Amino acid sequence: MDANELANHVAQEMLAGEGTGPAWGIKIEEAREDYARISMVVRADMLNSHRIAHGGMIFALADTAFAYVCNGANHASVAAQASIVFLDKVVEGESLIAEATEVAREGRAGVTRVAVRAGDGRAIAEFTGYSRTLGGPVVEM
Amino acid sequence: MDANELANHVAQEMLAGEGTGPAWGIKIEEAREDYARISMVVRADMLNSHRIAHGGMIFALADTAFAYVCNGANHASVAAQASIVFLDKVVEGESLIAEATEVAREGRAGVTRVAVRAGDGRAIAEFTGYSRTLGGPVVEM
Amino acid sequence: MDANELANHVAQEMLAGEGTGPAWGIKIEEAREDYARISMVVRADMLNSHRIAHGGMIFALADTAFAYVCNGANHASVAAQASIVFLDKVVEGESLIAEATEVAREGRAGVTRVAVRAGDGRAIAEFTGYSRTLGGPVVEM
Amino acid sequence: MDANELANHVAQEMLAGEGTGPAWGIKIEEAREDYARISMVVRADMLNSHRIAHGGMIFALADTAFAYVCNGANHASVAAQASIVFLDKVVEGESLIAEATEVAREGRAGVTRVAVRAGDGRAIAEFTGYSRTLGGPVVEM
Repeated sequence: MDANELANHVAQEMLAGEGTGPAWGIKIEEAREDYARISMVVRADMLNSHRIAHGGMIFALADTAFAYVCNGANHASVAAQASIVFLDKVVEGESLIAEATEVAREGRAGVTRVAVRAGDGRAIAEFTGYSRTLGGPVVEM
Repeated sequence: MDANELANHVAQEMLAGEGTGPAWGIKIEEAREDYARISMVVRADMLNSHRIAHGGMIFALADTAFAYVCNGANHASVAAQASIVFLDKVVEGESLIAEATEVAREGRAGVTRVAVRAGDGRAIAEFTGYSRTLGGPVVEM
Repeated sequence: MDANELANHVAQEMLAGEGTGPAWGIKIEEAREDYARISMVVRADMLNSHRIAHGGMIFALADTAFAYVCNGANHASVAAQASIVFLDKVVEGESLIAEATEVAREGRAGVTRVAVRAGDGRAIAEFTGYSRTLGGPVVEM
Repeated sequence: MDANELANHVAQEMLAGEGTGPAWGIKIEEAREDYARISMVVRADMLNSHRIAHGGMIFALADTAFAYVCNGANHASVAAQASIVFLDKVVEGESLIAEATEVAREGRAGVTRVAVRAGDGRAIAEFTGYSRTLGGPVVEM
């Protein structure tokens, strides 16, 4: 298994083993070394009182893509910190696509940038995640 | 209605009108001017593949408390940006309590700090939200 | 030496030993356990092209207060991440006061909140710093 | 003047008109539409008490590159919020290079990512800036 296959395998196993991804309808569009692109469709139970997607769900999608990327070498990692800028709103029935790329790594620390866009390409949010590697595998091989 | 009653009324109406709060089992413990304390219980569908609460759900709880606070004067506001530090993990069945306080306001901008703790008092996360007021009411009075 | 005296001693030694604090004219107004309040006066060489204090200098002041606080127990710590919201501008000759409080600690991680105000009390910025303890003392005793 | 020439002209005028850039020895390596790369050399007055570059100065360099980029279309913009992850240390005499790219824009809001590296290519910090356009030009033409 090369680095791209490993990253895809880890992401698929994480999605299968977590409560959140299936509950939110998350689909992995592509996962490879230092990269993942995932999507979900905005549902009524993801809306705030203005009837647009809740910022918490936009963050949750980006954070999920971040987790798949920072664990993709099968070294268990956790999110230590994350920041998000909200740029535009999305309504029920729209797709959200989160595209995550690890942009830096130094020792146990890593930084992953995630762009969240709507299905029509509108920029919805920009997320930055700071991960720390704990040691140990994510998936038993 | 004084400022504390108004803030509580707005928070209750927001919770009743949104898809997320009821879906996540959010309860408002207290809401008053520039302050809200809310809680939820960690469920299986909120866990990541390590069987601890997903960071996205911890953020979503804090972001909900932030939204109640920054809208509490009944001037419609949105989250423009938010940051979170993750400090400890929580497991299924534990309570999470988010305590939000608006710490600064200047023109249309506001900053709200949210401390997230487990039911036993452990510090789980620290969140900072940056809001902008749009104009118009949240709730028709 | 009790915890408050130790924190003050560490802050004074850090200021005396660093290049930046003296270069920026930083004064320690008060330093005690989990808390520091420091100030500086905005000079011409701290202004951006709009003739207001450069955001980098406002951050630098807050980050300095954060460093004094997170090292105050004399366990060497570093800033791993920080976030800042800019709320208002300041001009040449105004004082800036940064008031830092450690609000959470868990294992090697800590979170410090810093409010930056002008001399007349205007809210200028809100900063959040995430520190990690490395081990070893800051100051030999 | 095309968009790349305009961006370079604005950056050069900002550097010439600000107190900070000349005081810190900042050099513009390249400035074009949605992009700037700038550098400075770490001096003794930029060191903290551990004799490494102060986080405030690393942020200040990144924030300067961000300012040049978000103003590059000659629409006056301000930093509303910024976040930074610190990855490695640098010592006196090393160069720091900040490479800034605007990655999203929606209405008055923009997001600029800045990678800070040492002269030998080590990743030192990752910065994300959130700007808001005020209206009015930066430079009279």
